[in-house]
Amino acid sequence: MKLLYRRIPILDWLPKYRKEYVVSDMVAGITVGLTVIPQAIAYANVAGLPAEYGLYSSFMACFVYMIFGSCKDVPVGPTAIASILTRETLQKAHLGHNYAILLTFISGCVSMLMGILQLGFLIDFISGPVSIGFTSAAAIIIATSQVKDILGLSFSESNFLRVWKTIFEHIGETRLWDAVMGCICMIVLLILRKIKDLPVISKNTKEPTTMQRAIVKFLWLLSTARNILVVVICGLISWFLTSHLGSSPVILTGDVKQGLPPLKLPPFQSQIGNQTYGFVDTVSALGSGCLVIPILSLLESIAIVKVFSEGKPMDATQEMLALGACNIISSFVSSIPVTGGLSRGAVNHSSGVKTTLGGVYTGILVLLSLQFLTPCFSYIPKSALAAVIIAAVVFMVELHVVKPMWRTKKIDLLLSVATFLCCLFVRLELGILIGIGINLLFLLYASARPSLRVNKVTSTAGYEYLVITPDRSLAFPSVEYVRAVISKQGSRQGNAVPVVIDSTHIQAADFTAAKGIKSLIEDFANRGQPLIFQNLKASVGEIFKGVKPSGLKCCSNEVELNDYLKEYSNLSNNIVSRH
Amino acid sequence: MKLLYRRIPILDWLPKYRKEYVVSDMVAGITVGLTVIPQAIAYANVAGLPAEYGLYSSFMACFVYMIFGSCKDVPVGPTAIASILTRETLQKAHLGHNYAILLTFISGCVSMLMGILQLGFLIDFISGPVSIGFTSAAAIIIATSQVKDILGLSFSESNFLRVWKTIFEHIGETRLWDAVMGCICMIVLLILRKIKDLPVISKNTKEPTTMQRAIVKFLWLLSTARNILVVVICGLISWFLTSHLGSSPVILTGDVKQGLPPLKLPPFQSQIGNQTYGFVDTVSALGSGCLVIPILSLLESIAIVKVFSEGKPMDATQEMLALGACNIISSFVSSIPVTGGLSRGAVNHSSGVKTTLGGVYTGILVLLSLQFLTPCFSYIPKSALAAVIIAAVVFMVELHVVKPMWRTKKIDLLLSVATFLCCLFVRLELGILIGIGINLLFLLYASARPSLRVNKVTSTAGYEYLVITPDRSLAFPSVEYVRAVISKQGSRQGNAVPVVIDSTHIQAADFTAAKGIKSLIEDFANRGQPLIFQNLKASVGEIFKGVKPSGLKCCSNEVELNDYLKEYSNLSNNIVSRH
Repeated sequence: MKLLYRRIPILDWLPKYRKEYVVSDMVAGITVGLTVIPQAIAYANVAGLPAEYGLYSSFMACFVYMIFGSCKDVPVGPTAIASILTRETLQKAHLGHNYAILLTFISGCVSMLMGILQLGFLIDFISGPVSIGFTSAAAIIIATSQVKDILGLSFSESNFLRVWKTIFEHIGETRLWDAVMGCICMIVLLILRKIKDLPVISKNTKEPTTMQRAIVKFLWLLSTARNILVVVICGLISWFLTSHLGSSPVILTGDVKQGLPPLKLPPFQSQIGNQTYGFVDTVSALGSGCLVIPILSLLESIAIVKVFSEGKPMDATQEMLALGACNIISSFVSSIPVTGGLSRGAVNHSSGVKTTLGGVYTGILVLLSLQFLTPCFSYIPKSALAAVIIAAVVFMVELHVVKPMWRTKKIDLLLSVATFLCCLFVRLELGILIGIGINLLFLLYASARPSLRVNKVTSTAGYEYLVITPDRSLAFPSVEYVRAVISKQGSRQGNAVPVVIDSTHIQAADFTAAKGIKSLIEDFANRGQPLIFQNLKASVGEIFKGVKPSGLKCCSNEVELNDYLKEYSNLSNNIVSRH
Repeated sequence: MKLLYRRIPILDWLPKYRKEYVVSDMVAGITVGLTVIPQAIAYANVAGLPAEYGLYSSFMACFVYMIFGSCKDVPVGPTAIASILTRETLQKAHLGHNYAILLTFISGCVSMLMGILQLGFLIDFISGPVSIGFTSAAAIIIATSQVKDILGLSFSESNFLRVWKTIFEHIGETRLWDAVMGCICMIVLLILRKIKDLPVISKNTKEPTTMQRAIVKFLWLLSTARNILVVVICGLISWFLTSHLGSSPVILTGDVKQGLPPLKLPPFQSQIGNQTYGFVDTVSALGSGCLVIPILSLLESIAIVKVFSEGKPMDATQEMLALGACNIISSFVSSIPVTGGLSRGAVNHSSGVKTTLGGVYTGILVLLSLQFLTPCFSYIPKSALAAVIIAAVVFMVELHVVKPMWRTKKIDLLLSVATFLCCLFVRLELGILIGIGINLLFLLYASARPSLRVNKVTSTAGYEYLVITPDRSLAFPSVEYVRAVISKQGSRQGNAVPVVIDSTHIQAADFTAAKGIKSLIEDFANRGQPLIFQNLKASVGEIFKGVKPSGLKCCSNEVELNDYLKEYSNLSNNIVSRH
């Protein structure tokens, strides 16, 4: 019963739903809706698809997430990163835009599978530096893809370097009014973004007046709804100019298909040239995108949950299942891959959303706009949309982490830069895989080459011995190295000095380690040098004993150690005196 | 100067060479030679190549190893595992047998590169269980490939399952005399293998007589030279029968090309059908074999060095460089991949070899046999050679480690079995890669999910607190998990109970960990629950401080901890009393 409540959270919160929540959820849902609509149209453009696909992606997921979602603050819909990854994946596979829908379906299946198989730990393998490098590169690539719309240029180049080359070659063909509108929009958007932080109420004021509070609220609304405001105003201007001049001075979005999307299966087969490919071949053509898109979607979504859960434990598995369901079901209404967006999450949270029901209002707003507003959308200038995107993504370039990263660990900064460059100049999803790969090498190298502290110690009873302390568990890649270091340090001291291995940090071992330790014990026995394990965990000792090493000496405290040292010292004195 | 001596060991030992060594080295070299010749012919068959290639592979490497080799006991030449891997790699790439020579060249380059780039630690990633699974599967595949020769059958199937299917289908066509000879040879070989352990001298005898000593030595020689004995006797029998009956009753090896191999470059290009492929394409056709063969060769060779170095530190880098040189130079005389063989190493060691000069006598013997004995080799029955191989490889199936592995770590046994099955039924070199992959997942999972010990403690001063001890370093895959566990355990106790994180085992951290710890500190600060780090290493503390967490509290001993607890307790009492 508890599991059912966890897996279908609506069963848990719906019965407890209070009347007061209705208003909060509706306000939040509509506010998010106003953010989503311009974003959806813009992200469809980022993904290289017609504008209506963005809207198709923005309603069904909200409904599904209401049922399965565990975090009230996550508004599911298209995001910049999922969109650019979709574009790159389709381009690489030479597949048409309706395969974005297949990609949504596959992403959903992968997410759901990860949830069912409890593979959430895979997401933890994307470290901060890798994710920062990737996000920054993605932001720059997305911004780059929009520059041509700001300038009113038109070409189909998509490779990062070649886009800039083409832009510089065609810079003379820039259309004045598009550029002017784009730049003004960007400036206005950046100002509106900051406006909510204006110090209307000075810090010394203890009881703000009603007027002050109203101004704060108004500024917040202005700031939050900045995208739709800019888009609507630009749309009105271009509609006015078009109806008076006969043609628009700026490039418009053009026809957006009216009405709801058809309810149909995603395209499970593909046709390239004359050949028809089956499902498996199509998936393999889409390649690593099929994994990278869902994993990064989950990463983004889970990051939002963490931000808003304020330290309360979260259920990553439920989030995977919910996102999986959102994507699978959305793919039947021609959606591109969807996930939670951080900026929308912030809007949702600060609008005071109470439950995931808020998403329903967002979804309804999107459906209404699809049914009734698409003729208006065709008047939205392309440069205004591009400005919306650029003003959003520039803040994804995380330059401010360079300093703390340098202070904490310099090699992590290097990793971040390497990931960034690979993402930018090779390919986005390949870049993050390379970054993850390099990062895993760090881990593996650390487990292959632990550090061993070596100290020469004289015990309280006056016996001299060498203490060697390995800093971590013994596993197959490290054991031969540890054996070599201990042997070397031991023989450097001469055979008369006992070697004590302080095993405090050895928390686990495996068969290879046990064999290595057995050889080590034999090496020391052959040399006649005593070898003693101090503070060996019982479970590790059991593992060592599995390979039956002869003469494994363990001690758990100073007294036992002293006994061993004394016994050995007597023994060697006897030998010396006998000769 | 010291480095030069290490890199070209001959400079070190040749000036110190003593007259007494000559006899020892010559005896050992010739003994090894007598083992190598039948093995070489047999392993050429395992690799799917004409018999002379085995001999081509057995002299140049000895000469080169004399100059660069660091371990006197390693006799370099073709081995069963390198041969079967060569066969599988060529078969997969659909390349003819002269590409075995290219494979030798590439293996040499890879070994040398690994030596130069100090990549020896890569070999440590092949754990005991994976290597045991692989070796056992390889032994069974090799034995399987020889069964048809024992039975006198003739077909070209090579897949493990299909070979057995074909054998059972054609079992009726078994040639009587081949089978009889093969079985007798195997029995004789197994008996001769055991004969040296006969208790000629009883344990109570203190001074063995000259006669007894001579018998022991004779039995040892009989046992060591068993392969050549069996092959020579069978050869004589079939020569006798052929010359008397006109045709041989058993299938013979047939013409072995006489004379030394030509001195020429390995084939750097390949021709498949009508298309010519360049070096890069040929290498990519050979695929993972190009890495698996040299790495397993190094593994085998380094294992021998370890066995005979008796705990003395070894120079793995020098071994890689030496084997690299052996393979590269050997590839100019049509050699298949060479490495040190454990069985030959044992022969070499027990024959009392003193320096790597012993290999020169082996090499000369092989050269002489190529020049003068090849006509005789053509009379060797195929079934006798097959018996030699089978009697050698059956001991590579390591059933005796099943028990200790079960006792030490059950999952390692599972891993071993999985590797074994993948090697047997998928493909050898793919199987070991899968095994290594699974094993790395163990490592990664352990670093992603450390275990945390949780204890509720009352300090000497009477303060109650929770101690949480993570068992290993904090790195990117584990930090979110650690944060979640600590948060959960902390909040379960209620906000009044301070949480102390015993950081004894945290030896390192990275940027992601620092960020996670910062969030953790903020979570606790928001709840008003104290969080104290005990025994935090200074270097780790510096890493945490890099992201500027506000309110990081550290203490290094009981007194400091008590001070903190007291301070907090006063604070909360104040708050309580104020309310």
